[in-house]
Amino acid sequence: MRRFVIVGHKAHSTADFKLDDLAGGAGRLDVLLRCVNSTFFLSHNIRTDAEAYLVLLGPEAPPRTVRFIGSEVRYLNPDERSTGALVRNALLKAGKGLIKSSPGVYVSDQSFHDVLEELAPKGQIVYLRENGIPLGELKVGPDVTFVLSDHKDLTPEEEAELERLTKDVVSLGPISYHADHCITIVNHELDLRP
Amino acid sequence: MRRFVIVGHKAHSTADFKLDDLAGGAGRLDVLLRCVNSTFFLSHNIRTDAEAYLVLLGPEAPPRTVRFIGSEVRYLNPDERSTGALVRNALLKAGKGLIKSSPGVYVSDQSFHDVLEELAPKGQIVYLRENGIPLGELKVGPDVTFVLSDHKDLTPEEEAELERLTKDVVSLGPISYHADHCITIVNHELDLRP
Repeated sequence: MRRFVIVGHKAHSTADFKLDDLAGGAGRLDVLLRCVNSTFFLSHNIRTDAEAYLVLLGPEAPPRTVRFIGSEVRYLNPDERSTGALVRNALLKAGKGLIKSSPGVYVSDQSFHDVLEELAPKGQIVYLRENGIPLGELKVGPDVTFVLSDHKDLTPEEEAELERLTKDVVSLGPISYHADHCITIVNHELDLRP
Repeated sequence: MRRFVIVGHKAHSTADFKLDDLAGGAGRLDVLLRCVNSTFFLSHNIRTDAEAYLVLLGPEAPPRTVRFIGSEVRYLNPDERSTGALVRNALLKAGKGLIKSSPGVYVSDQSFHDVLEELAPKGQIVYLRENGIPLGELKVGPDVTFVLSDHKDLTPEEEAELERLTKDVVSLGPISYHADHCITIVNHELDLRP
C-alpha cells in the first residue's frame, strides 16, 4: 500500500465553504484536492493500491481527517470541484469515530498524531521535505506512508511527532515543489522500480 | 525555454462555458488547466523560463490557442477555477491574430499545425506518448517543446504532423499518466539535470 498524508494547516474542517471558493474561503483546500488527484489518477484508471489522508486543521472543528481508499472509492473525478464536493459531503456527515460518507471516503476526528499512530504499525513512514536524502536512495517496503505539508511547512511540534516515528527524510531535489507535484513525482519514481 | 503544447480535442474554443462546469460543459478544459499549473508552479514561485500552449479544438470557433508566458504572466493562481477564468477571458477577447488578453496570456486562431510551425524553428520538439525512449535517455537542448495530448490520443493526422518535425518520441515508463502529471514528471527530471 502506498499512502500519502497531507496536513492542511488552514483547510476548513467544517463544510462552511463554497465549491466556488476552494482556494479562498476553504483555507487552501484546493492544495489538498490536487493531492487526492495525484495520489490516485492514472490515464483511464485509478490506483487501487493507494490511500490519501487529508488532515484538516482549519476552522471550525479541527482536527478532522478525510481519507480516500483507492480500492473502494467511487464518484472520484480528477477535477478540483468534484473532489471538493466529496470532502464537503464528508464534513457534513462528520461526527464521533470513523464515518463512511461515500464509497471509499471516510471522515473522522483524528488528529495528525492519531493518524500517525494508526499508520506507523502498518509499515514505513517517510517525511518528504527539503534537505533529505534523494528519493532514489530510499529503500521502500511494500507498505509505505509519505507525509507532506500543504503550502506551509509542518510546525516544529508536527515535525517532532514525525521524527519520533521515522528517520526516513526524503527530498526531491534542489527545488521546492507543491505537495501534489511531490506526490506525482514519488508515484512515478516508485512505478519505475522493479 | 521549456515549452509544453497540449492539445484539447474537445476543449471549448469560445467562452460559452461556466467556471462551475470546467470538466463537463467546457469539454474537459480542466485537463488543460491542470497542465498550466504543472508547467509553471513551484513552491512560492513561478517558472519564468516556461511557456504553455493550450490548443483548443472543441466548439464553437476552433482552432484557438491560448498561450501562457511564464516570464510575463500575472494573476495566475494554482487552482483550476482561477486559471479557467484567465482562459475564459482570453476567449472572450479572441479575434484575428495574436491578442494579449491579460499580462502573459495571449489568444490566437492558431491551429496545432500553426503552433508547431512557429515553435519548430526555435528548437527541439519532443513527442510525449506511450512507446518512446525513456526520458532519461533524451538529450535536451536549451530550447525544447514537449507536445502532449489531453485525455484522448493525438489523431493520426496530428501524429503525422508531429512526426514530420521530430524523431524524439519519449515515454515516461510502463504506466500511462494524465497530461498534467507528465508535465510535472518532465519538469522534475529536467530540474535534476546539471
